[in-house]
Amino acid sequence: MSANKKAVVLLSGGLDSAIVLAIARERGFELHALSFDYGQRHRIELKAATQVARAFGAQHSLISFDLRQFGGSALTGETDVPKDRTHSQISEGIPITYVPARNTIFLSFALGLAEVIGSFDIFVGVNALDYSGYPDCRPEFIDAFESLANVATKAGVEGRRFTIHAPLIQLTKAQIIREGTKLGVDYSLTISCYDPSAEGAACGRCDSCQLRRKGFAEAGVSDPTRYQ
Amino acid sequence: MSANKKAVVLLSGGLDSAIVLAIARERGFELHALSFDYGQRHRIELKAATQVARAFGAQHSLISFDLRQFGGSALTGETDVPKDRTHSQISEGIPITYVPARNTIFLSFALGLAEVIGSFDIFVGVNALDYSGYPDCRPEFIDAFESLANVATKAGVEGRRFTIHAPLIQLTKAQIIREGTKLGVDYSLTISCYDPSAEGAACGRCDSCQLRRKGFAEAGVSDPTRYQ
Repeated sequence: MSANKKAVVLLSGGLDSAIVLAIARERGFELHALSFDYGQRHRIELKAATQVARAFGAQHSLISFDLRQFGGSALTGETDVPKDRTHSQISEGIPITYVPARNTIFLSFALGLAEVIGSFDIFVGVNALDYSGYPDCRPEFIDAFESLANVATKAGVEGRRFTIHAPLIQLTKAQIIREGTKLGVDYSLTISCYDPSAEGAACGRCDSCQLRRKGFAEAGVSDPTRYQ
Repeated sequence: MSANKKAVVLLSGGLDSAIVLAIARERGFELHALSFDYGQRHRIELKAATQVARAFGAQHSLISFDLRQFGGSALTGETDVPKDRTHSQISEGIPITYVPARNTIFLSFALGLAEVIGSFDIFVGVNALDYSGYPDCRPEFIDAFESLANVATKAGVEGRRFTIHAPLIQLTKAQIIREGTKLGVDYSLTISCYDPSAEGAACGRCDSCQLRRKGFAEAGVSDPTRYQ
């Protein structure tokens, strides 16, 4: 593979996207990370994203827009983030932390950036197995977006193929964490919490914290997260 | 059809999207217009969009983000907008006014808004016939986005179907203008120019002005645009 092949990597500041960045580096790509300030409550993750990008020597772009004006999600609206749900509650149905069309919007910007910089590989840390609640984390969504990318763009029309890489999509959280450990990801730079304190301490009780804790425990890896 | 069926309509302030808004109204939809301030040179079109939305009594949302940071287009970058091209030049290849992934990004936001307000109908004024240069104005793009919408969303998972309406896609500019005239669209509210003066006068020479002029001439309708 060419040493200069570029990848656009969606980077949230959470655990999964940091590991995806490590995977893209491992596969030899030049890294272009892309983050979004979309009005999320847990905007502290953007600091984490910046630190993670820096740790990987990745170029890093931030796109800002405000999804709060649409409402419709506990992550952008006034509704409380649910806490202390059991794993079976977490796995059931679409949670109110779902942000309508969020991954579609994120991947669309990634596609625009990819087209401008001449990249044909977009990486995203979606996961369908341990957190199947979000419709835009499923393999059929990734496949549909890849099909779209290849008719939406100049490159697609000219016969170049985009690939949407979702390397974590069928892994458990524990498998993801083991992969990250193997690749030397510094977990202390990442934050998973949907509702952290102003100082950045994780609540330990939202769905995302619970999945992270369970994943570290199952992987037998110690979690450097500072919980409240 | 239910009187309260909602449509999300992408509204640029140009001719085509104003006519699409009229078509959606004609079909009985409650109108939710959506515009974007994305760093376009011709930001004056946003004033036009606001006026058009008001004239139709449509709800109107504006999403702001900055595509200039990506570059890659004469509409957002430093490159000059091409002028005085012949019609065969205009029809040939992908012009440098193409903004990578723009319609994918716009439709993604429309999908998010639709999901939040309970709409399953998104209208977009793309046109493949008279201006075939943009890959994301073709029928195969619209079809691919509709497929994506139906796996990307909660509604899609629950078995509701989204429809992406592109009612102008196979019309000539003259046919579009005749349709707008029939529906009573006030063309003086719209602006098509890619490079208007600070006072909002159209250049008359960019591809978009030329297509507009030609369309009005062929439709036998007088164009209220103030040209420089």
